[in-house]
Amino acid sequence: LSLAENNAVLELVNEIPEQDLSAILYELETEESVALLNILTTEKSAQVISELDTDIRLKILKHYSPEQIASFIQFIDSDDAVDLINELSVKTGEEVIAFIQNPEKADHIIDLLHYDEDCAGGLMAKELIKANLNWTIDRCIEEIRAQSKNVDKVFSVYVVDDNMRLLGLLSLKKLLLSDEHAIVADIYDPTIKSIESYRSGTEVADLMRKYDLETIPVVNVQGKLLGRITIDDVIDLITEQADLERQIMAGISNDTEEDDSVWLLSKSRLPWLIVGMIGGILGAQFIGLFENVIHQVTAMAFFIPLITATGGNVGIQSSSMIVQSLARDSTYIAMNPDRFIKGFVVSLINGIAISSLVFIFNLVLKQEMDLALTVSIALFCVVLVSSFMGTITPLILFRFGVNPALASGPFITTANDLLGLGIYFSVAHLLYSF
Amino acid sequence: LSLAENNAVLELVNEIPEQDLSAILYELETEESVALLNILTTEKSAQVISELDTDIRLKILKHYSPEQIASFIQFIDSDDAVDLINELSVKTGEEVIAFIQNPEKADHIIDLLHYDEDCAGGLMAKELIKANLNWTIDRCIEEIRAQSKNVDKVFSVYVVDDNMRLLGLLSLKKLLLSDEHAIVADIYDPTIKSIESYRSGTEVADLMRKYDLETIPVVNVQGKLLGRITIDDVIDLITEQADLERQIMAGISNDTEEDDSVWLLSKSRLPWLIVGMIGGILGAQFIGLFENVIHQVTAMAFFIPLITATGGNVGIQSSSMIVQSLARDSTYIAMNPDRFIKGFVVSLINGIAISSLVFIFNLVLKQEMDLALTVSIALFCVVLVSSFMGTITPLILFRFGVNPALASGPFITTANDLLGLGIYFSVAHLLYSF
Repeated sequence: LSLAENNAVLELVNEIPEQDLSAILYELETEESVALLNILTTEKSAQVISELDTDIRLKILKHYSPEQIASFIQFIDSDDAVDLINELSVKTGEEVIAFIQNPEKADHIIDLLHYDEDCAGGLMAKELIKANLNWTIDRCIEEIRAQSKNVDKVFSVYVVDDNMRLLGLLSLKKLLLSDEHAIVADIYDPTIKSIESYRSGTEVADLMRKYDLETIPVVNVQGKLLGRITIDDVIDLITEQADLERQIMAGISNDTEEDDSVWLLSKSRLPWLIVGMIGGILGAQFIGLFENVIHQVTAMAFFIPLITATGGNVGIQSSSMIVQSLARDSTYIAMNPDRFIKGFVVSLINGIAISSLVFIFNLVLKQEMDLALTVSIALFCVVLVSSFMGTITPLILFRFGVNPALASGPFITTANDLLGLGIYFSVAHLLYSF
Repeated sequence: LSLAENNAVLELVNEIPEQDLSAILYELETEESVALLNILTTEKSAQVISELDTDIRLKILKHYSPEQIASFIQFIDSDDAVDLINELSVKTGEEVIAFIQNPEKADHIIDLLHYDEDCAGGLMAKELIKANLNWTIDRCIEEIRAQSKNVDKVFSVYVVDDNMRLLGLLSLKKLLLSDEHAIVADIYDPTIKSIESYRSGTEVADLMRKYDLETIPVVNVQGKLLGRITIDDVIDLITEQADLERQIMAGISNDTEEDDSVWLLSKSRLPWLIVGMIGGILGAQFIGLFENVIHQVTAMAFFIPLITATGGNVGIQSSSMIVQSLARDSTYIAMNPDRFIKGFVVSLINGIAISSLVFIFNLVLKQEMDLALTVSIALFCVVLVSSFMGTITPLILFRFGVNPALASGPFITTANDLLGLGIYFSVAHLLYSF
């Protein structure tokens, strides 16, 4: 890093994209990172800091005063600035805001701090270019010139009336091709999709995905233009949701990554292992009630893994279908009787297939007839019950505002293990007492 | 639909966004859909058809001649047109291409048909606006005017040299703010991210996500500009990959949705149920070898579900971490020894925690000492082995070009069930023969 004193190297480093620089910081010690940031221009440092993940960003920002942090924020879009401030302690955050030189930026940030992180208001940035209905094209271009240092990516201008109510859109393409004396009102496009600030992030993602939007304006209930959401934030949201869902399905309770500390990794996995363990202990207690049966028909024990595994597999298959439907369309009507009938028919077919196959296997392997019957009947019931459980659980969780992916994880497997054992030994009890 | 004869209604229907119209078609019979499409303008019909899913689109297109389909394609971007043609039979596809009026469009499509669907070349559209380095701004604007009816969304102009090699980018914003007599060479931005046509869709998605790009130009190995990929196609790709991964994790073998037919749903679930079943049967055979042990110590059987469930849970937790790392960064170096050491330490901690807890439980529940020891030692080994299996399996699959998510599904659960049983009865054998 001492090489960096050299001006040519310095210029070169400043030309590396901030995304690549931030990737480099993950490999460095905090002190080295700070040293590297200090040789960059303030603007570049700000961009790099804005790219970082929360934990490493916090470590690095500890080395800067609130005043210095405020100078970084000057170069960060308001939505990212708010994310950054939200990570700081309340006190530091307020000090930082107090030091922001640009009063408009400070207002933007204070405004955005009111919104919940996961709603449209929390995702939007205040930086946008708006034009009044009555302006000429010339004036629009002047406005873009004035604003363009604040607004990174300009694809279009939002058209508003005197009360700042959103009316439509004027694409840069249209602007470029129009006569400079034309009036906005004559050439703007009044068909525009917007979203209210209280809508959820998922609704934002659904809408932008459906209509292939690069940006979407955010309005309040009166239709006043508040800000805009860009597609890159929505992509981050979609990726995070996919990660979260995968972790929930795998029974990992915190948002962890492979390069987190051993301690954090252990801690995030242990809770679901313990749930599974308690399930196992309960299972052991339950099977214990049938000690007598097993003592007489030892072969009963052989098929325990078959019963529990099938229950788990069927449960996860069914629940993941529901989770997928819910992920695709958040306005989904959950309790549709058709869904249960269809799920029932599918599991009927698969239940018959699996239990017949097992029955044939058992005959070929010269298993006792009574046991072969018990296993196949139990298996058939397990497929039906697990499928029902897998269908209803994510719907119930969704209804109560819990992430339905939870139903595809260790939770359903554990529950189905117990249910499966119950069915297996009940069937045995019935058949053997004949 | 007979109402639609009315001109006012007709105009109204044509103003509904194509995304909403296509959603309506999912609710209609094919004949009704065709009737609805026929009252729309050809352009609108084309847009609606372009939005549809493969199966319903095929049904509808059966009602149109190749010539009519060619007239729709006139209004569809080349990448979507190629997707549509690829769905048709080879013969119909070639007839459709022969009927395309616009020779440039036909060339574009024939060109794109060469690329594999999942690579950058298969994702790109040929419609873009390019400007020569030596043009004036005025000429650029003329070009945009000429091209703008072909190119839906224009955010920037690609700058090329006389050999069509990509040099950089000229944003519309810059174009709007520049003097009309300026030369492209003086104002364009030479720092541009592009991607070679043979790169995978995942690489495209990684790059666009990392650098927050709305479009990315596609070049050949010589750097010649071939086309561009827009972010909406990448979002579809990301969503499809997340769906695919979820289905693989859940053990569903085809790309199915809740509203597919019962038969298709059964068929896509059965293969993995059968894998689980074979695992279960093998497990039964294996436990059968220890019939004697179970007959003597019946309580051995009680803990079978605990052993298999823990193995499954640990395996899925470990593999999902690897799958996540691989999903985030496709250029990931797989066989990093640090990863295995870290995974080992994490599973050591969790293994000790879980087996101690079970040991305490068993003492409290007054289980025999020998059995309590067997269960806890086996459980500890199962956690270690399953964690190793969960780490190595996705890496091996990835190495051989198989989707690593497969390792988080029924495959790993079934393998770990068998391994767990093996460990459990081996430990019992060792301990009880003392």
